[in-house]
Amino acid sequence: MILGMVLERINDPGILKKLSPSELEQLAKEIREMMLNIISCRGGHLASSLGVVELTIALHRVFNTPDDKIIWDVGHQCYPHKILTGRKDKFPTIRDFGGLSGFPKRQESIFDTFDVGHSSTSISAALGMALARDLQKKDFSVVAVIGDGALTGGMAFEALNYAGHIKTNITVVLNDNEMSISKNVGGLPSYLARIRTDPKYFRLKEDFELIMGRIPAIGKSVVRSAERIKDRLKYLIVPGVLFEELGFTYLGPIDGHNVVRLGEMLSQAKSLKGPVLLHVVTQKGKGYSHAEKKPHQFHGIGPFDKKTGEVLVDNTACPAHRTYSEIFGSTLLDEASRDSSIVAITAAMPAGTGLGKFFETFPDRAFDVGIAEQHAVTMAAGLAIEGMKPVVAIYSTFLQRAYDQLLQDVCMQKLPVVFALDRAGIVGGDGESHNGLYDFSYLRPMQGMVIMAPSCGMELASMLKTALTLKCPTAIRFPRGKSSPPSALAPLIPPGKGELLKKGKDLLILAIGSMVGPALEAHRILAHKGISCCVINARFVKPLDRDLICSWARKCRRVLIVEEHLTTGGFGSAVLEMFNEEGLTKIHLNRMGLTDPFTGQGGRDNLLSLYNLTGEGIALEAEGIFFGRRGLLSRDGAKK
Amino acid sequence: MILGMVLERINDPGILKKLSPSELEQLAKEIREMMLNIISCRGGHLASSLGVVELTIALHRVFNTPDDKIIWDVGHQCYPHKILTGRKDKFPTIRDFGGLSGFPKRQESIFDTFDVGHSSTSISAALGMALARDLQKKDFSVVAVIGDGALTGGMAFEALNYAGHIKTNITVVLNDNEMSISKNVGGLPSYLARIRTDPKYFRLKEDFELIMGRIPAIGKSVVRSAERIKDRLKYLIVPGVLFEELGFTYLGPIDGHNVVRLGEMLSQAKSLKGPVLLHVVTQKGKGYSHAEKKPHQFHGIGPFDKKTGEVLVDNTACPAHRTYSEIFGSTLLDEASRDSSIVAITAAMPAGTGLGKFFETFPDRAFDVGIAEQHAVTMAAGLAIEGMKPVVAIYSTFLQRAYDQLLQDVCMQKLPVVFALDRAGIVGGDGESHNGLYDFSYLRPMQGMVIMAPSCGMELASMLKTALTLKCPTAIRFPRGKSSPPSALAPLIPPGKGELLKKGKDLLILAIGSMVGPALEAHRILAHKGISCCVINARFVKPLDRDLICSWARKCRRVLIVEEHLTTGGFGSAVLEMFNEEGLTKIHLNRMGLTDPFTGQGGRDNLLSLYNLTGEGIALEAEGIFFGRRGLLSRDGAKK
Repeated sequence: MILGMVLERINDPGILKKLSPSELEQLAKEIREMMLNIISCRGGHLASSLGVVELTIALHRVFNTPDDKIIWDVGHQCYPHKILTGRKDKFPTIRDFGGLSGFPKRQESIFDTFDVGHSSTSISAALGMALARDLQKKDFSVVAVIGDGALTGGMAFEALNYAGHIKTNITVVLNDNEMSISKNVGGLPSYLARIRTDPKYFRLKEDFELIMGRIPAIGKSVVRSAERIKDRLKYLIVPGVLFEELGFTYLGPIDGHNVVRLGEMLSQAKSLKGPVLLHVVTQKGKGYSHAEKKPHQFHGIGPFDKKTGEVLVDNTACPAHRTYSEIFGSTLLDEASRDSSIVAITAAMPAGTGLGKFFETFPDRAFDVGIAEQHAVTMAAGLAIEGMKPVVAIYSTFLQRAYDQLLQDVCMQKLPVVFALDRAGIVGGDGESHNGLYDFSYLRPMQGMVIMAPSCGMELASMLKTALTLKCPTAIRFPRGKSSPPSALAPLIPPGKGELLKKGKDLLILAIGSMVGPALEAHRILAHKGISCCVINARFVKPLDRDLICSWARKCRRVLIVEEHLTTGGFGSAVLEMFNEEGLTKIHLNRMGLTDPFTGQGGRDNLLSLYNLTGEGIALEAEGIFFGRRGLLSRDGAKK
Repeated sequence: MILGMVLERINDPGILKKLSPSELEQLAKEIREMMLNIISCRGGHLASSLGVVELTIALHRVFNTPDDKIIWDVGHQCYPHKILTGRKDKFPTIRDFGGLSGFPKRQESIFDTFDVGHSSTSISAALGMALARDLQKKDFSVVAVIGDGALTGGMAFEALNYAGHIKTNITVVLNDNEMSISKNVGGLPSYLARIRTDPKYFRLKEDFELIMGRIPAIGKSVVRSAERIKDRLKYLIVPGVLFEELGFTYLGPIDGHNVVRLGEMLSQAKSLKGPVLLHVVTQKGKGYSHAEKKPHQFHGIGPFDKKTGEVLVDNTACPAHRTYSEIFGSTLLDEASRDSSIVAITAAMPAGTGLGKFFETFPDRAFDVGIAEQHAVTMAAGLAIEGMKPVVAIYSTFLQRAYDQLLQDVCMQKLPVVFALDRAGIVGGDGESHNGLYDFSYLRPMQGMVIMAPSCGMELASMLKTALTLKCPTAIRFPRGKSSPPSALAPLIPPGKGELLKKGKDLLILAIGSMVGPALEAHRILAHKGISCCVINARFVKPLDRDLICSWARKCRRVLIVEEHLTTGGFGSAVLEMFNEEGLTKIHLNRMGLTDPFTGQGGRDNLLSLYNLTGEGIALEAEGIFFGRRGLLSRDGAKK
């Protein structure tokens, strides 16, 4: 790896203070070049990181990191920060198994102050650190860097509200690029846009004072009013009144690509007492023309041609295959064409969840609420009450944000809302903060919820169609990755019915979702060894197909359960509960799944292999059961 | 029950339109009298309901309910609404088993549009209904009534932000009484206070226009500025700019106890296009002097003397007993006196969680963040990172709001934050929306989390002290109700160690938390019948005391697990998983707990009896196991 001349010298951000403006400019260029070179080869979160190069340099120049704390919200944008804080040599391993994380990680560096991944947490974390500092009578600065997208997440507002109350010294840098992953939505982003596009609209303070000084005395009441205006309204006529009203000192908006100006304003923010919000305007994708034009596409991107900006096609995949997201999106589109009561809701992920065409085709029935999962779920409840069929398309990991709304507003009211949980299971490069390994466990106890997981694209289509016919809350969880699209008309699935895929007498492999394929592979492997395996595709985690599963469990007396989910509280746990209720005690049962929820990052297939969640791994475990061995879980799990 | 003369005539809110102002005034008086008479005898949410009598009358006069939809946020304040919508005769049954719910319930009345209980959901639900209306080309109004406390909850902001974007017609009535349960905190409440206390501060629009008309032309630039100010700043100089900036039309503030004025303004709100926020100032506890003086005490209150306002003492309880909340609070206070790194965090419940004295004694180390559970948890993470020992005191049901923050910000970072989960289990009169029946199931899969449940007040003190010594996230869940306070120095508990309370050979009763007492009672009952029971107080749900439990399970071969929690995913499920991992197959195991998460309202003891969670119920089930019968769960549970 050839580093730029300035970048080569930066092993510690302390040195940034000594660089000249032209060296800083050169450094920004070199950081962008490095990111482009690496990310074009391997993929990653590029556009956000390109947008904050100057901001990152300025932050590390003005603040004394790691003593001063910088908390990056979400963390997509942390690449320049990693490069500048002693990790440039490891940067080519970013998002790899065992490599640098794509997000700030405290274990990775003392410059990473808070582990992130989900949005809108930085101000709360910053306040906690600042309050600890105050109590310990220490003296350091705390800076939260949050995008305008993340700012629409409710908990960011909760934190702003509390910061305005507690009045401790923190700086919130609002990194305003008009985007979350897609274009931002909401009253707050439009407000920011007004400030940004016409600062003069607000910046009239001086003119205003001049005018006020020239008003002739007309009458007592007017003079009194004028005085009142002069005294009290001045601050209304600067931008950022919304933040000022919450108790912040607002500074900005300023150009986020001017390192010198950024440095001045950050110094000012640092010196002010109480909570300060510095509004910095940046361009997502800055410095790389393709990303500037299509910042959304370059938010999280696979390998691409640096010259053309074209994404490189993955030649290893079957060309006929489609992502589960695409299959979900096209099935929903078909259904919505037939049924005008179907509406789709996403929280800032219209493209990621496969809803792009739905938004184009049915703009009135497609709602992107921004980064606001809680609101998305409860709004869906309201739509369902009035007779619509809302489908909430969301990543498994992000539905965690709306656990309570799901329970209280949807399930408690028994409302027919469909949850399409994308990226369930292991997600790959994003790592632990984005894995969808909890959904079965948190959905199972919710009363009246039907929980499904498809084994392939065809089944996803069937399940979605089925869910839309049910009069209760339903969740369909499906993995990241590709599958063959529905080749024919996907049939409805009888609710609560699993599928007997292979009959056998020695052993029952009971698989759900993405593990059905590997279970069938295990069946083949075992057949070669003379072991006769029964394979059931459970399809439903709730309600379980009691008759099918119990009858074959009784016949085989040995059961292996496989799921791409944590073993605690998941599908296997549901089966254990059912066997207990049915008094099925003399079954030799092993469970396979993820035992460590904080499964690291890396290729999804590699990680599945690592955890034995492959045809071979399942066959090996099954063979063990056949020969009377205890399960993997008792060997790993019992130690915990 | 003697009804007032006007109230007697109201069987349907439609009639309200025909009443004269003086009749309306009389009606308000009669509603207050009725609420006071009933709630003083039986307890309930009084103060909020007293505060919205005129508002409720005005809403039902202006809007055509049930065609127009009124959504009450949280729902504490729905008593006048229930009284006016055909439920006055049933009102004396409020919060009883089988009686009227203390919250709006769709099943109860067509006038109840959305089931509530948790805060800040009304605007989201209203938006969903309004969007459905638009798509179906129907014509009705949608009104969300939300308190200033609930407005600080993040999801309310998410909804405001989206309402400002989507621009459909809804009315948000901001019921501003300066209180949630306690005094509100935050930048937003202070902002509302400024509007409220000095409307002239903002209401300068007309004066301003007058002034602007008199400015002499001084120079071109000033004139241009003046023009710009005239054109564009007018709207800044009315109150509510914060809401206006988000895209709302702001009306108010107005007196919330003037029915006529309320009617005029609600009519105006109804006629306006787009989202409207009407700011109504009410007094919590209005019309009852004791509640006006101590609105917090009369928020949720037990039976009291109507004359003196004194709460009636419950003579059935042991006078030496204290609530679990009090024991928690006093233990934490003791520990905090010794250890200055301990801080306490609550989300708008300093008194309810027993932290009253802590707030008085250590105001700098006590943080009430308002209704903002997400922020509370992540701020605790920030405090822990910087070396403090944060204790988050929260009701089990409300921690559901911060599921993701708990997982991502605390557990993923392995931070030593202590969660004190009050009101875990059945809560009584508040009913299904407030029961804490999910915590074991959602906490169990969280990596590194230690989960405890005390069997008595002494053990709560021990567990809290133990938790403060651990270097990992911990949760202690304890029930509503009373126990003997720690009589002596509460000893630390070895992590992961249960307690063998009774040796026996026929059966093991494995109980957790509040069920340990009844398990001991069952032991006594069974002993009389010649059945020798072993009783273990599990203490820890995670990590389970593997050695103790498995060894006695092996000895007894019959196990009965008892918990005040859902049977799905809870403590029993954890034991099933462990037995599976340990290869303990030949155990006859029954589980007892709650099978219906939406367990109704009523006295906690009565409900526990109903679900057999008493000494007698446990003994009966244990006897069944002893004689080889399948468990309750297989009889009920298998049907589902």
